[in-house]
Amino acid sequence: MSVPSQYLEKTIQEFSKLPGIGRKSASRIAFHLLGLREDESRALAQTIIDLKNNILFCRICGGISDQVECPICTDSSRDQSVLCVVENPKDVLNIEKSMHFKGRYHVLGGVISPLDGIAPEDLNIKNLLERCRNSSVKEIIIATNPTIEGDATSAFIAKLVKPSGIKVMRIARGIPVGSDLDYIDIATISRSIDERTEI
Amino acid sequence: MSVPSQYLEKTIQEFSKLPGIGRKSASRIAFHLLGLREDESRALAQTIIDLKNNILFCRICGGISDQVECPICTDSSRDQSVLCVVENPKDVLNIEKSMHFKGRYHVLGGVISPLDGIAPEDLNIKNLLERCRNSSVKEIIIATNPTIEGDATSAFIAKLVKPSGIKVMRIARGIPVGSDLDYIDIATISRSIDERTEI
Repeated sequence: MSVPSQYLEKTIQEFSKLPGIGRKSASRIAFHLLGLREDESRALAQTIIDLKNNILFCRICGGISDQVECPICTDSSRDQSVLCVVENPKDVLNIEKSMHFKGRYHVLGGVISPLDGIAPEDLNIKNLLERCRNSSVKEIIIATNPTIEGDATSAFIAKLVKPSGIKVMRIARGIPVGSDLDYIDIATISRSIDERTEI
Repeated sequence: MSVPSQYLEKTIQEFSKLPGIGRKSASRIAFHLLGLREDESRALAQTIIDLKNNILFCRICGGISDQVECPICTDSSRDQSVLCVVENPKDVLNIEKSMHFKGRYHVLGGVISPLDGIAPEDLNIKNLLERCRNSSVKEIIIATNPTIEGDATSAFIAKLVKPSGIKVMRIARGIPVGSDLDYIDIATISRSIDERTEI
């Protein structure tokens, strides 16, 4: 196939590397970019550079932030006694979207996974223990994903934190709201029966 | 919802403007970009700028090119007697992918569409007539999309070109290869019967 422009080809290749974008979508995007005004196209390029240059990791929770401490950690209206422990910065946004949790977060930066060579010391766990010791935290809610690694990480943290007398909770597993039992796997159904709640 | 970083928010907004990318995919991409090395992220930004700064429109066919004349128009091994007329530069790539057409292209830059305010003089038609007059073109194949506007544009061009004695053809409409009659609309089925070919 004759590609009439190496710049077009390069753009398609670069966009194909992004998650969820195949060659076809990348080519659609490349032609869209061609049709943009120069300032629009420059704005997109600039945000990519700005993102990389300006985002920091909050020194308290490890989540992403524009400042040394993130707006959630410095928000005095949030409940200082509850910490929600998540795998990565994106999970903070996922939980914030629900507008249901009013405490603060702690971002591990991954889960313990021997197969991927990730040990407990590679995660932001030491800081979590520090926060549990030195602050007014009374409860932690572990919200790692319900995978083998997420569960193992949760158990590992629970073991470390429990002796200090802090309540250690795990987010509930069960059937998703609005779903249909027809489409739910047996492990989830079993779990929803084990963890049944009184009406 | 607290967004912990305006740079992240800006990136999500910019990527959401791209075709086929909603806020959820954009946010997935933004977090992916955060995880890239600086040179990788800079490479993506640079291709977007390069694309806009370096791509030209071929002065012969109107397709995209890195040079004043595109590699297809200057390829002497391609058949000089057949021109395939397409709506936009992307269609050149779509047809090239099939590796079946060995002639050259002419890109209209759109179709006649009174509703969108696009008149024949807004398209690259004058140049097409010029090419038909001055070169060795013996046949044109009109490959505009099988829409009302595509068909009208095709008829308009046919009327202008035919008097010069050049053969004017339209790409065949019919059932797509590998499809199932169950899923084909009645207009296409009717067309495939009207334009039946001998076995």
